[in-house]
Amino acid sequence: MEGGGTYNRSSGVQASDLDRAIAAFTQAAREVPLPPSAEPVLLADYGSSQGRNSLRPMKAAIEMLRTRLGPERPLCVTHTDLPGNDFATLFETLAQDADSYLAGDAAVFASAVGRSFYQRILPPASVSLGWSSWAVQWLSRAPAPLPDHVQVACSNDMAAKQAFARQAAEDWRDFLAARSFELRPGGRLVVLTMARDDSGEFGYRSLLQALVDELRDMVAAGFLRADEWARMTIPTVGRNRDEWLAPFASGASFEGLSAVHFEQVEGHDRFWAQLQADADTRAFGANWAAFSRASVFPTLAAALEPASDEGRRSAFMDRLEAGVAGRLAAAPERMRIPLALLVIAKPQA
Amino acid sequence: MEGGGTYNRSSGVQASDLDRAIAAFTQAAREVPLPPSAEPVLLADYGSSQGRNSLRPMKAAIEMLRTRLGPERPLCVTHTDLPGNDFATLFETLAQDADSYLAGDAAVFASAVGRSFYQRILPPASVSLGWSSWAVQWLSRAPAPLPDHVQVACSNDMAAKQAFARQAAEDWRDFLAARSFELRPGGRLVVLTMARDDSGEFGYRSLLQALVDELRDMVAAGFLRADEWARMTIPTVGRNRDEWLAPFASGASFEGLSAVHFEQVEGHDRFWAQLQADADTRAFGANWAAFSRASVFPTLAAALEPASDEGRRSAFMDRLEAGVAGRLAAAPERMRIPLALLVIAKPQA
Repeated sequence: MEGGGTYNRSSGVQASDLDRAIAAFTQAAREVPLPPSAEPVLLADYGSSQGRNSLRPMKAAIEMLRTRLGPERPLCVTHTDLPGNDFATLFETLAQDADSYLAGDAAVFASAVGRSFYQRILPPASVSLGWSSWAVQWLSRAPAPLPDHVQVACSNDMAAKQAFARQAAEDWRDFLAARSFELRPGGRLVVLTMARDDSGEFGYRSLLQALVDELRDMVAAGFLRADEWARMTIPTVGRNRDEWLAPFASGASFEGLSAVHFEQVEGHDRFWAQLQADADTRAFGANWAAFSRASVFPTLAAALEPASDEGRRSAFMDRLEAGVAGRLAAAPERMRIPLALLVIAKPQA
Repeated sequence: MEGGGTYNRSSGVQASDLDRAIAAFTQAAREVPLPPSAEPVLLADYGSSQGRNSLRPMKAAIEMLRTRLGPERPLCVTHTDLPGNDFATLFETLAQDADSYLAGDAAVFASAVGRSFYQRILPPASVSLGWSSWAVQWLSRAPAPLPDHVQVACSNDMAAKQAFARQAAEDWRDFLAARSFELRPGGRLVVLTMARDDSGEFGYRSLLQALVDELRDMVAAGFLRADEWARMTIPTVGRNRDEWLAPFASGASFEGLSAVHFEQVEGHDRFWAQLQADADTRAFGANWAAFSRASVFPTLAAALEPASDEGRRSAFMDRLEAGVAGRLAAAPERMRIPLALLVIAKPQA
């Protein structure tokens, strides 16, 4: 992710589809068994980025827990992300944002963990409520180069597609196994994530096309080297229904966890809705380009050499953003945003 | 603190005097009563910065706790600092440093809290062992401008000196009160910090003189504006024995805490020792200037306007570092480093 609050400012796409997931999280907060009275109740946010999109779900769950526990019971919220995440912006958001769940509740204690959620990163049987939005589509690594695209859903390289599918299956199992270790008996985990729908659609087609066209033009213009372009791979996947539910095949439990809810959600393209209202194609392009810059440009820029050349990195980001914005403005299309919503439960002991 | 690992690389001064404090922390780990068997044991590190200097004390305490608890009991370590701290480097240090306490112990769980330790930032009665090194000399704010210096110990402005002393007393009480809330009954807190010795000496004289001389030259040369220089104040204080012990006057407890140990420690000027061995005055100046850059230059640079001018900020830091290095190399003196070591205990219920 890009630092300095970029993700917080340009994550409105992710924010607009949280309502269904927040409702599921609030219901989990209503139903989850709570630890003995001396212990704090721990909520975990897996893949927080800079935290802006975590405020609403955490606040909703905390409000529900307060109706059950009263105002004084200590609640802990732990936000996790990769070590290099912009945790300073996360903590500044928690301290200053008007929507922060810390405001007005002195018995909530926030913390962060900078470790990959594909391993055990919180104490055993400690988490009552887990939340993860727009995070588990990021693989632990890119398992293969993509010779013809930056996103595996748009690639025609069958070997690469198989390698990504294998990695996606392994990472999802690893994610669930680590959460099973961390969840308390009776604990719940709500996951909202990018996905492929039942027709196999990953979405974002015109955005991804604009991105690749612009990168290819940069190579043709000599701005980008061929080996840099070859290394550019976004390690995200859209798993489909079968892939999400594979660990729980035939209703079985996996590592002691059950999938108690699965739902496909179609995200709302709010930039498209805005375009219908104001006919501002330039804003439509700029908004999607800014979303793209915040979420995936840093991953692409990591392929630049030398890595220390901040000036070139920033020129690359600016040029790519302007190029993508211009292409989308010239031929605006409504973006498909296929999502999956899962609720995972650990049975009571 | 400056980001990008600067503090980790240039905090050797702080590291060299940790031995006595680590011994006290290890003893606390040997003696502290432990929570019931289901609960993790929580160690808190108050004012971690980028974490490098926290690895040894945490590792020593964890090794001691492992002899008491065996290899499987979950231990949690929470590092706290201000919201804007460089937590990415902290987490990268924990993940990659060969001395990390996470290496080889899968039952230790690290986290961070980005909130000021002058308030309650961890759950009530949760912390078994607290650690704070080179941190509580930082006040919550500069209570007055210093018209004649950047460090109150070198100022002759009596009104400012009194304002700093009042703030220091208030902040120390606030720090202790918040820790009293967080410590478990029987918990211990070890504090190593800059201090004034019994003669009133704060130390670092030639370094502070070089700093102020260089800043004054920058003003004379027109590089620094007079109003910028006037705003430059380092909000650190060296409290003396009476000031450390004031909340516990006549052996009384304060907020339920007792001071079970107080000791003045004279820090070792390892750059001076190196100079005796190699006669390299340039290295002596460069080492102290790098220490100073990592610990206090960011505070000074915060007075520059406009704050957004990264180029000028970085030119200021470079010029100040070079100037300080040159002045110290021209007239090297052994640096006095007065420290205080306290062990605070919360009685068992």
